[in-house]
Amino acid sequence: MAVGPDTLVHLQPVDGVSISCARAGIKKPGRDDLVLFHLNESTTTAAVFTSNAFCAAPVQLARSNLSESSPRYLLINTGNANAGTGPKGMQNAVSCCEHLASLTSVNSENVLPFSTGVIGEHLPVDKIISAMPDLLSEEHTASWLQAARGIMTTDTRPKGHSVRLEIDGEEIVVTGISKGAGMIKPNMATMLAFVATNASVSPACLNAILQYAVNCSFNRITVDGDTSTNDACVLFATAACRQSVIEHSDDPRFIALRDAITKVFVILAQLIIRDAEGATKFVTVTVRGGASSQECLLAAYAVAESPLVKTALFASDPNWGRILAAVGRAGIENLDVKGVNVYLGDLLIAESGGRADAYQEAAAKAIMTEEEIRIVIELGRGGFEETVWTSDFSHDYVTINAEYRT
Amino acid sequence: MAVGPDTLVHLQPVDGVSISCARAGIKKPGRDDLVLFHLNESTTTAAVFTSNAFCAAPVQLARSNLSESSPRYLLINTGNANAGTGPKGMQNAVSCCEHLASLTSVNSENVLPFSTGVIGEHLPVDKIISAMPDLLSEEHTASWLQAARGIMTTDTRPKGHSVRLEIDGEEIVVTGISKGAGMIKPNMATMLAFVATNASVSPACLNAILQYAVNCSFNRITVDGDTSTNDACVLFATAACRQSVIEHSDDPRFIALRDAITKVFVILAQLIIRDAEGATKFVTVTVRGGASSQECLLAAYAVAESPLVKTALFASDPNWGRILAAVGRAGIENLDVKGVNVYLGDLLIAESGGRADAYQEAAAKAIMTEEEIRIVIELGRGGFEETVWTSDFSHDYVTINAEYRT
Repeated sequence: MAVGPDTLVHLQPVDGVSISCARAGIKKPGRDDLVLFHLNESTTTAAVFTSNAFCAAPVQLARSNLSESSPRYLLINTGNANAGTGPKGMQNAVSCCEHLASLTSVNSENVLPFSTGVIGEHLPVDKIISAMPDLLSEEHTASWLQAARGIMTTDTRPKGHSVRLEIDGEEIVVTGISKGAGMIKPNMATMLAFVATNASVSPACLNAILQYAVNCSFNRITVDGDTSTNDACVLFATAACRQSVIEHSDDPRFIALRDAITKVFVILAQLIIRDAEGATKFVTVTVRGGASSQECLLAAYAVAESPLVKTALFASDPNWGRILAAVGRAGIENLDVKGVNVYLGDLLIAESGGRADAYQEAAAKAIMTEEEIRIVIELGRGGFEETVWTSDFSHDYVTINAEYRT
Repeated sequence: MAVGPDTLVHLQPVDGVSISCARAGIKKPGRDDLVLFHLNESTTTAAVFTSNAFCAAPVQLARSNLSESSPRYLLINTGNANAGTGPKGMQNAVSCCEHLASLTSVNSENVLPFSTGVIGEHLPVDKIISAMPDLLSEEHTASWLQAARGIMTTDTRPKGHSVRLEIDGEEIVVTGISKGAGMIKPNMATMLAFVATNASVSPACLNAILQYAVNCSFNRITVDGDTSTNDACVLFATAACRQSVIEHSDDPRFIALRDAITKVFVILAQLIIRDAEGATKFVTVTVRGGASSQECLLAAYAVAESPLVKTALFASDPNWGRILAAVGRAGIENLDVKGVNVYLGDLLIAESGGRADAYQEAAAKAIMTEEEIRIVIELGRGGFEETVWTSDFSHDYVTINAEYRT
């Protein structure tokens, strides 16, 4: 189950990046479960990782390798998160990187490892190493779409997006893929996402763009409030376009590129919510009129993560009382409830902290039966606004998370 | 569905309190939906109320009346929360109190109103007023058990407890009832709970006992993290025992009474969790070795409210990875995961932040299939410890909250 049509735009190749996929049989046979990104030498790379204290071995190793040298390979496996696996887990992640490095004549630090899948089981290193010759053979060259499929876990759909823009007469491409469906509340990081551009960008500028784009996208979604142990988001610029390097944020190309990259990030983040475990609704929660961004986010997440609001969304029940109750417990200091209005789409359903005079259950119900629902909350305290995206809580959410070990 | 046997101890009457029940047909006919407590003149009363900014009209009025005079009547209706109902909601609450006051020759401020049920619909004041003569007639005198039934909403079981103790050769009784099954994360307050004793206690001491008891009980439970708009917990001491008043916390009677009252509170709070919406498990989450109570509670609530942990509990799946992931995102500063151990019951399942060496899936699974599950998390950072109680997330939770308007 997922919300909206299962269509992706064509994922444009990005010069300077080559991709391959292979089948290591990590969790089950017969599917691509290894993806390798090979980056050209001129590539700059920026990344953010999960803020969960229990971050997985590959997260620790990728963070450390990135701080020491420029990545040439991103090695991603699905089917096993290599999280909660102690010193042996770290050893396994190192072994994978070292083996790939020896086959490709780079340093081990030039390889960034990423793992996603079940927590707490040891990585089958032998299987992964056995599949590396396939990963490096020409006949396993893969498209971005194949890579998007290769990193899926409980996802029901591959997730990707591409935009093209012209900068100084040359075509710049931004293409990215993401995965994730549950254990989703990225916090200063994301589920797995890999976004590339052929633009030429300094490390500082690329990092600034990444922080901006993540904050507008992956840091604004929640499925269940559970931050993963393995989240990582990598942005790389291959410089294959051969333009001069974007080195300053006041370079007009900086803004153009930042906005294109942010657009890809937002769509990748929204695709995660559309494919959230058990989702039947794609829900946009906007809080405006806050005295700070922080209090807008408090209210937005309280609503977006309330099990009662989420089950009402599943039932298409315009239960504005649950929305108000969630705002009321969000922790906003001295909230004057008389200033609070709530809209479903454009329909005012709660006014001054109570049911709107003109409220009609039938009109509200009609909006709630849509697949895409927009909840707008006005706090009446200031000029700040924030938006988060979430999904509903369905029987399938319980089934998926009760019946399958993740 | 509820956890454990449906048995209550006999609820001892408390001298100085009389109870009556009546049928006003507020939401549906044929059940008691009005409960009246009549307190003798010597009674002292203490109460705590929801911290939700959208607190209901009766909460606002009860808080205000309590600050102005000594309650003589507690008027409780189920079937309608009178929350999110604006100025008319307040007017309706006042009308009920005024009418009861006129029939009983007390001041309106001597009546405390309590409402529970659907949010956002106006209270049917006429129905309530019409039933008041019944409430005041001798033939509607009711037991504590009848009162426990009369305040139920989505509860499947009445909730109550009694203890008796001897103080200075005289029998002191503590009897209480509670209700609540969903929208439960009391925060400095509770769902509805009414606890009485025949002891003689000064207002300051009674308030101190209430704060202590609530903190050990209703402030340590969560079903879905959603704090209600109508939570209230009232403790009253009728002084019918005719002992001298307990006026100081160093009076040995103070400790004895406080502990007896706390025991009743803890059992009432646990009964709410045992009857939580859709609950199939009663779960105790203890976090010890914290550097403060606050961080123990952060970890305990992160685990107790994690949808992924709760669905794993429903599935009897010893998914310790989800427990570690929840602890890791709880917001404990500089948590060293190598110091973290997790037990299921007495079985060590995660050690030093990873799977325990001796871990056996079968042994862990056997514990998870029990109805009552104890999760113990050691942080290895200090000497503080906290315990919260919670339930699992089942298909019935989704059904109850998707199919019925609360």
